[in-house]
Amino acid sequence: MADIAVMGHGVVGSGVMEVLTEHFDSISRRAKEDIHVKYILDLLDFPGLPYSGRFIKDFQVILNDPDVKIVVEVMGGLHPAFDYVKACLENGKSVVTSNKELVAAKGAELLSIAQKNNLNFLFEASVGGGIPIIRPISQCLAANEVGEIAGILNGTTNFILTKMNRDGLGFSEALKLAQELGYAERNPSADIEGADACRKICILASLAFGTHVYPESVTTEGITKITPADMGYAKTWGGVIKLIGQVKQLENGKIHIMVAPMFVSRDSQLSNVDDEFNGILVRGDATGDVVFYGKGAGKLPTASAVVADVIDCVKHFKARKYLFWEDAKPDYVASIEEVPQDVFLRVNGRNSSKSYCEDSDTVFHQAEAAFEGTGFAAPVRLIRKDEEPGEVGLTVSRLTRRELDSLVQKLSDQGLTVENRIKISEY
Amino acid sequence: MADIAVMGHGVVGSGVMEVLTEHFDSISRRAKEDIHVKYILDLLDFPGLPYSGRFIKDFQVILNDPDVKIVVEVMGGLHPAFDYVKACLENGKSVVTSNKELVAAKGAELLSIAQKNNLNFLFEASVGGGIPIIRPISQCLAANEVGEIAGILNGTTNFILTKMNRDGLGFSEALKLAQELGYAERNPSADIEGADACRKICILASLAFGTHVYPESVTTEGITKITPADMGYAKTWGGVIKLIGQVKQLENGKIHIMVAPMFVSRDSQLSNVDDEFNGILVRGDATGDVVFYGKGAGKLPTASAVVADVIDCVKHFKARKYLFWEDAKPDYVASIEEVPQDVFLRVNGRNSSKSYCEDSDTVFHQAEAAFEGTGFAAPVRLIRKDEEPGEVGLTVSRLTRRELDSLVQKLSDQGLTVENRIKISEY
Repeated sequence: MADIAVMGHGVVGSGVMEVLTEHFDSISRRAKEDIHVKYILDLLDFPGLPYSGRFIKDFQVILNDPDVKIVVEVMGGLHPAFDYVKACLENGKSVVTSNKELVAAKGAELLSIAQKNNLNFLFEASVGGGIPIIRPISQCLAANEVGEIAGILNGTTNFILTKMNRDGLGFSEALKLAQELGYAERNPSADIEGADACRKICILASLAFGTHVYPESVTTEGITKITPADMGYAKTWGGVIKLIGQVKQLENGKIHIMVAPMFVSRDSQLSNVDDEFNGILVRGDATGDVVFYGKGAGKLPTASAVVADVIDCVKHFKARKYLFWEDAKPDYVASIEEVPQDVFLRVNGRNSSKSYCEDSDTVFHQAEAAFEGTGFAAPVRLIRKDEEPGEVGLTVSRLTRRELDSLVQKLSDQGLTVENRIKISEY
Repeated sequence: MADIAVMGHGVVGSGVMEVLTEHFDSISRRAKEDIHVKYILDLLDFPGLPYSGRFIKDFQVILNDPDVKIVVEVMGGLHPAFDYVKACLENGKSVVTSNKELVAAKGAELLSIAQKNNLNFLFEASVGGGIPIIRPISQCLAANEVGEIAGILNGTTNFILTKMNRDGLGFSEALKLAQELGYAERNPSADIEGADACRKICILASLAFGTHVYPESVTTEGITKITPADMGYAKTWGGVIKLIGQVKQLENGKIHIMVAPMFVSRDSQLSNVDDEFNGILVRGDATGDVVFYGKGAGKLPTASAVVADVIDCVKHFKARKYLFWEDAKPDYVASIEEVPQDVFLRVNGRNSSKSYCEDSDTVFHQAEAAFEGTGFAAPVRLIRKDEEPGEVGLTVSRLTRRELDSLVQKLSDQGLTVENRIKISEY
């Protein structure tokens, strides 16, 4: 019998208990041992549960019990999760976590402690919820050089964007709906500002390329500025707007990594990843594109990924799983300024300091003029249904951020306002 | 250093050599040992290769070399592959194979020998080529009860159906194109008759539900009878035609398993798996639907899956991977006759023995009449572009094969011909 402890009895923690209880027989068969939860650590009381007697409030009980060789951390947040996990790994206990914030902020350090002590630190549930992605990248694709990863990594924003696209809702309305349905939290900023997606692409990048990428080093843009007008232009262009986290290895050894809402072509495997689902595209030199699709969050999907890691830990008490990356290197993340990108611009004849041009054709010609003599390809005009007077949609090709900034300035000088700029995805 | 032998130097075998050579460093790092191919078994000579000196023609050399602890079988076919693999497993050598015919026909027997001898028998490459699917089902989804699997498992037929759908080609034209482009073999029957997809769904079913399913017990229908007219009706209905292999666990402990071309709704994650790609949907009780997408065949994708298994073998010389299923049980596969299904029927007023009704409306009313008094739901009419005179498309709901046969007989008695019947997928 393998004794384990579960730290945290929130949504995921209670899901872990549910999965371990309901699938006890098949899990024992797969782990080749019965898995017994000896302690559940939580500050709250949970009376009336069949396992209420196992709750404890003092982490030291877990740390000092030599029978507990595997600890599940599903508390979330950085502290005290980090301190507890570190103490476990330093004291001979393997750890399984679903905590993306922890892995993104402290992965290299914790993996290094685990390696030194010949223990496992597993976190399949930290990215993609119930979608197997950490293990496929580290194992199944072991014989590949993974060069690029791009994904829809946050279910909340994908739900919001799907509603905006399908039902024409504005951002605030769609967010409100998501909150009512439980897809968004009351404080949704980590989702809608892109921080959650950023942590996940950092974890995937660290894993695929072997060097820790900290979220602070990643240019991250949320979805709060996306409007129904942008959605309309994306439709005309032949796609949809999705919040994409992506990373690509460059020839100079650096990586190009970012999180931003992007136009995604209808031909892309990511374009029909809708509602609260996640989709992750992994581009390997031998396999080509492999895409993983499923529910990226939720109690049972996430819990089942945690439990799968626990089973793996039980089976590998002695043989450590290969899962490791080095700490961050300076200058490893390429400046986003330098990487040329196709971009959509929504321009308007409205300008606070100048007169209001209501004629879209005129606005387009003014915009075209701004490109003349720059050496950049001329902009391509998009026309959407219900276009406002003086509004123009444009796509521009292969401009660096710097080049784009100077063009936007030029447009502004001509009395035009760039209301939004949205990257066009390569995936 | 780990010495291995590779049996077979065809497409996959030469791909395995390429992957092992080109990614030597990263593979050594991941396996924590250098992997060295000591022998390559092939009846042909391959002069001029950097590793030409390692070719042998006598299997006994491999069998009798105690240094070789892992053997890769990429010869294909049942004999002598089976005899060689069996001899390896009986003599202390783990085996990695890409041979779906072998696994589908002899999986239970070989897994049992591997288990007895504490060896690994791995076959990630046998289903889905470079898509990780065997390992995710057996490991990542270990904490789930997988209840259903449905997939587009054959790239050749998917390429053909995609061409028919997109470009309006007939089956023969599309097949010819697939052959010209190397997506179909000169003798394409294993693909187009569904045998290849059948082997793969058998392997997935065996793995997910723990009991071997032999291809002979699976009702299998190929795509040779699909016409552009059927494609047109599928479009009107709101979907496409795909060759689906599917298996579902029934409440009585049996499984419902089959391979057939089916109408797949545009809302399904399988509907936009196009060209030579594969897509596999796994429905778990905790995870919900998880979909894996990628190239299901090809030299490098398949070879990289083989090499990933080799790495796993090297890392697990002592700890056997959990991968096992029992031999087949009688009456385990439910008779397909008993399972109600939605079906599309293409009916025509043409009938060899009777007069030719050229009026589609009349034909539809005759068809409707056949349903009256049967207790079955009335058929729903589909109308396609360029419909032929007297042609009618119908969908009917929840009929067993037996019920459908009697209805088709009734239609025939009324002077109508059922030109094709195509199942409607639930996925």
